[in-house]
Amino acid sequence: MKFTINRSRFIQELATVQRAISTKTTIPILTGVKIVLTDEGLNLTGSNADISIESFLAADDEKAQMQIESTGMIVLQARFFSEIIRRLPESTFTLEVMDNYQVAITSGAAEFTVNGLDADNYPHLPVVEEQNQLKLPVHMLTKLIGETVFAVSQHESRPILTGVHFMLANNQLLAVATDSHRMSQRVVPVENASSDFDIVIPGKSLVELSKSLTDEEAEVEISIMENQVLFKTPTMYFYSRLLEGNYPDTNRLIPNSFNTEITFAVPTLLAAIERASLLSHEGRNNIVRLAIESDSVILYGNSPEIGKVEEELAYEKVTGDPLEISFNPDYMKDALRAFGDMSMTIRFISPIRPFTLEPSEGEVSFIQLITPVRTN
Amino acid sequence: MKFTINRSRFIQELATVQRAISTKTTIPILTGVKIVLTDEGLNLTGSNADISIESFLAADDEKAQMQIESTGMIVLQARFFSEIIRRLPESTFTLEVMDNYQVAITSGAAEFTVNGLDADNYPHLPVVEEQNQLKLPVHMLTKLIGETVFAVSQHESRPILTGVHFMLANNQLLAVATDSHRMSQRVVPVENASSDFDIVIPGKSLVELSKSLTDEEAEVEISIMENQVLFKTPTMYFYSRLLEGNYPDTNRLIPNSFNTEITFAVPTLLAAIERASLLSHEGRNNIVRLAIESDSVILYGNSPEIGKVEEELAYEKVTGDPLEISFNPDYMKDALRAFGDMSMTIRFISPIRPFTLEPSEGEVSFIQLITPVRTN
Repeated sequence: MKFTINRSRFIQELATVQRAISTKTTIPILTGVKIVLTDEGLNLTGSNADISIESFLAADDEKAQMQIESTGMIVLQARFFSEIIRRLPESTFTLEVMDNYQVAITSGAAEFTVNGLDADNYPHLPVVEEQNQLKLPVHMLTKLIGETVFAVSQHESRPILTGVHFMLANNQLLAVATDSHRMSQRVVPVENASSDFDIVIPGKSLVELSKSLTDEEAEVEISIMENQVLFKTPTMYFYSRLLEGNYPDTNRLIPNSFNTEITFAVPTLLAAIERASLLSHEGRNNIVRLAIESDSVILYGNSPEIGKVEEELAYEKVTGDPLEISFNPDYMKDALRAFGDMSMTIRFISPIRPFTLEPSEGEVSFIQLITPVRTN
Repeated sequence: MKFTINRSRFIQELATVQRAISTKTTIPILTGVKIVLTDEGLNLTGSNADISIESFLAADDEKAQMQIESTGMIVLQARFFSEIIRRLPESTFTLEVMDNYQVAITSGAAEFTVNGLDADNYPHLPVVEEQNQLKLPVHMLTKLIGETVFAVSQHESRPILTGVHFMLANNQLLAVATDSHRMSQRVVPVENASSDFDIVIPGKSLVELSKSLTDEEAEVEISIMENQVLFKTPTMYFYSRLLEGNYPDTNRLIPNSFNTEITFAVPTLLAAIERASLLSHEGRNNIVRLAIESDSVILYGNSPEIGKVEEELAYEKVTGDPLEISFNPDYMKDALRAFGDMSMTIRFISPIRPFTLEPSEGEVSFIQLITPVRTN
């Protein structure tokens, strides 16, 4: 294998697959990036126990200015290789595989010789069976991830809760995550889905996927295999393992009658919660208290050592019974950030029952649930 | 004490004194910021074992829009206080000291009540005796620090070497630092110095001082006391303790006859050293090798596990004997960065004797020394 390529274009490709490469792996070859050159172009692959990313750069890519002298493949230690490429002096470099998996990297007067590994020993990626396919606009997929993934559990005590549950049925795609203290659920309509599915994707995989997708790609194609899911764009294959087990039925958690309702502009409430949490974070319990009266809504934060904060909140509308309720402000912050700049309604049953958060207007099917903290 | 002030102007002042405030201190009151309000304006003070910073905001400061209702003083836990101020909703806030050192901080609908401490218990700063004064342009002082402070020792085994040695004599100010492996020395001419001095200022203090000085101030006035130095601008007093003990005589370390001389453009050599150090960092010894011949100069880096790099260097001029020498590339990187974008000459005696680096042109009195590594 020998080729010359534009350095910054190559760095871009390498950065994409490096998301999947960990330096802490028990399988040494997985600290490497697999480089495969064919007449069609250049494939880079990175992989860890959870995700694998394969990127493709076409031989005629204009920015890459690729000059292929001979095809072939090699595995190079990824972190180190990437640092070398970043520091090369010229705008292009040449990579050549020599005897014994030695690789020469040259750019201007700088000549690196590094030890590579036999690409035949690199693990094979899952074979795509081209079934259970669904196409989604990239912006819809990344929004869906952003609206749910923050609510996955960070603890391995119930592994299934560390993933986001995706269910496709009746041309509707539901995504839901819960850590048993809060829940976030979003439903989007989809078209032309080939068949229904019910899978749980690790939250960490989805975070990496979101970072890997760029607006340049309009659509992503989702294929589901036995225990893997593949997200496919014209320039990237992103594989993630699936979580095994039954995801709890979250629909039954959502209450449908309420005693108090209040509507806020999200940024206003978020700023107040951030202030109140400054004090709650110093206390042992990390809770803030919301007191809703028919003519005033007050938020309290308190830390015995440091002090307290009290703020009368500006709201858009309040109806129903007066209520005093305490909750973890960090859950509320996450929930509000998922809404963005809009109007949002919170509905309460009582100080000890979970409350819901939903957009105040529009037909958007997005609901969140937060469990309050009992204070007496 | 009660006053209203522009929030962003106050945050700026607070950030300056916070440089001196550590959360890890054995004296609890030093985690606080001392706030003193007089009819002249607002004084903030932060302090730790090494440095103290006092900032002054005049009552008639235009941007501060200060409204003073009553004067007084208080100490507030600095990190926490600063987080509160940053998150307040309006562009101004009001601070009022109430009974029992309780402090009310209000802005819009947000009302914080925090526990303060009696400012009478805050340690007193050193008294300035107005002697041993020297005035320096701010840009000259920060340049002097930048050219030397990187070479101080990071180890406490010889505490005196963790500081920069400043000597004023014959209207010349000398600054020198060494960690016994490398040395950096700069001399600048000064005018109107009242009397000579010989002090060692902790490197860490100088780094913080550099960050605290802004180009807005044209001059800084330096006063030396028994065991303290004070850097004074119209809006800030910066105190640092001095290191006690005798600084070694560094002048005798500088050789004055050489066998090989080579001149480089600093950015060219720096980029090559950075590439070579990628490999040396992976090896046990962290050394690179420079081979100087009359018609070629080659830099080598090597790591048995990863690979090697070899680069023919572009140089401006070479004279004297051929030479092969090995050295720690990190010392060379630090040295080159202190020069900036200019031409620099390295002078060697032999592979086992320290070599010097100096600007190739001009009358600037700036010299660095690096001890090579013996490889056989």
